[in-house]
Amino acid sequence: MPNPVEFYFDFSSPYAYFAAQQIDRLVEGFGRECVWKPYMLGAAMKNTGAQPLTEYPVKSDYVKNDWARLARFQELNWSMPDKFPFAAIAPSRAFYWIHDQDPAKAKAFAWDCLETYFGKGEDISSKDAVAAIAARQGFAEDEVMAALDDEAIKQRLKDETAAAIDKGVFGSPFFIVDGEGFWGADRLWMVKRWLKSGGW
Amino acid sequence: MPNPVEFYFDFSSPYAYFAAQQIDRLVEGFGRECVWKPYMLGAAMKNTGAQPLTEYPVKSDYVKNDWARLARFQELNWSMPDKFPFAAIAPSRAFYWIHDQDPAKAKAFAWDCLETYFGKGEDISSKDAVAAIAARQGFAEDEVMAALDDEAIKQRLKDETAAAIDKGVFGSPFFIVDGEGFWGADRLWMVKRWLKSGGW
Repeated sequence: MPNPVEFYFDFSSPYAYFAAQQIDRLVEGFGRECVWKPYMLGAAMKNTGAQPLTEYPVKSDYVKNDWARLARFQELNWSMPDKFPFAAIAPSRAFYWIHDQDPAKAKAFAWDCLETYFGKGEDISSKDAVAAIAARQGFAEDEVMAALDDEAIKQRLKDETAAAIDKGVFGSPFFIVDGEGFWGADRLWMVKRWLKSGGW
Repeated sequence: MPNPVEFYFDFSSPYAYFAAQQIDRLVEGFGRECVWKPYMLGAAMKNTGAQPLTEYPVKSDYVKNDWARLARFQELNWSMPDKFPFAAIAPSRAFYWIHDQDPAKAKAFAWDCLETYFGKGEDISSKDAVAAIAARQGFAEDEVMAALDDEAIKQRLKDETAAAIDKGVFGSPFFIVDGEGFWGADRLWMVKRWLKSGGW
């Protein structure tokens, strides 16, 4: 069984939304599994010294336009959220809690979060918002709310984030294929080529 | 006659090398002209607060690997220069001096500079090195050396850099098509799509 492809992302990352739409189909076309791994990009940025794209005055206008045209080209809904970026603690914790029960539902939940945030421009930072999205996958809202404050789940997200950083992950989206890293939604063609050729 | 496509770049930028190999053929396929516009990326970075990619510890390893694999995929020579990045004043001044006499030779000179620097890993920062490359386009080395210290040429590069920044250029490569900006060698597919569809 070949290694799964790892898809690292932060729920607050527009380019993760654009990659998430495509990555499973791409990877599965090569008989591989894609594992989604949300993590706290802000923790990685402390290492690289990077700032959110919208913190740079000139780049901010550029990337906002870029997101809108990418959405148009990928036929995705797009609505720039008012609150951007945000610390995606609640959706990330909920993801791992769901994942340990049903990985497929965790992906569906993650996609719903990204679509709700970037497609509709709605808040997904609050526990209430996250519980409502998880409920659409069949989870009881009160159980989700309890999980979000569970110490084991809190630690799980910390551990997943630390593990990602240890592997050299520093952006969103970021893919690892057999130890080789690929940064950015723009690198999907390269992930594809790598899967096809098996390396260099 | 449609507007030319503008290709902004810094001679010290690996991703400019990867884009330069492809951009003319891409643009000319749509009956457009491509105008090459070297500028001083460092001046733009003062505005955006960005640092050279190799200044970030984790990113540095990533991008060096990325450049090598891109070169492999594009069948380009690659040899990481020892002196990197550098302030590309000499090649940029020479470019505009050549351009005013023969735009086609200016492009050939620019490509030769990029290939010498990134393909062979040789220094192109010195006046001597730049004069030697210009000589391969038929220019007398002593005339190139004189031009590099010419006040009008110095001012020309300052003006071109200021004009690029005024247009919102902040990276390398950066393309402008009918007022729409595209940042990165990864955005060539989007430049192509824009030229095909005429916009959104």
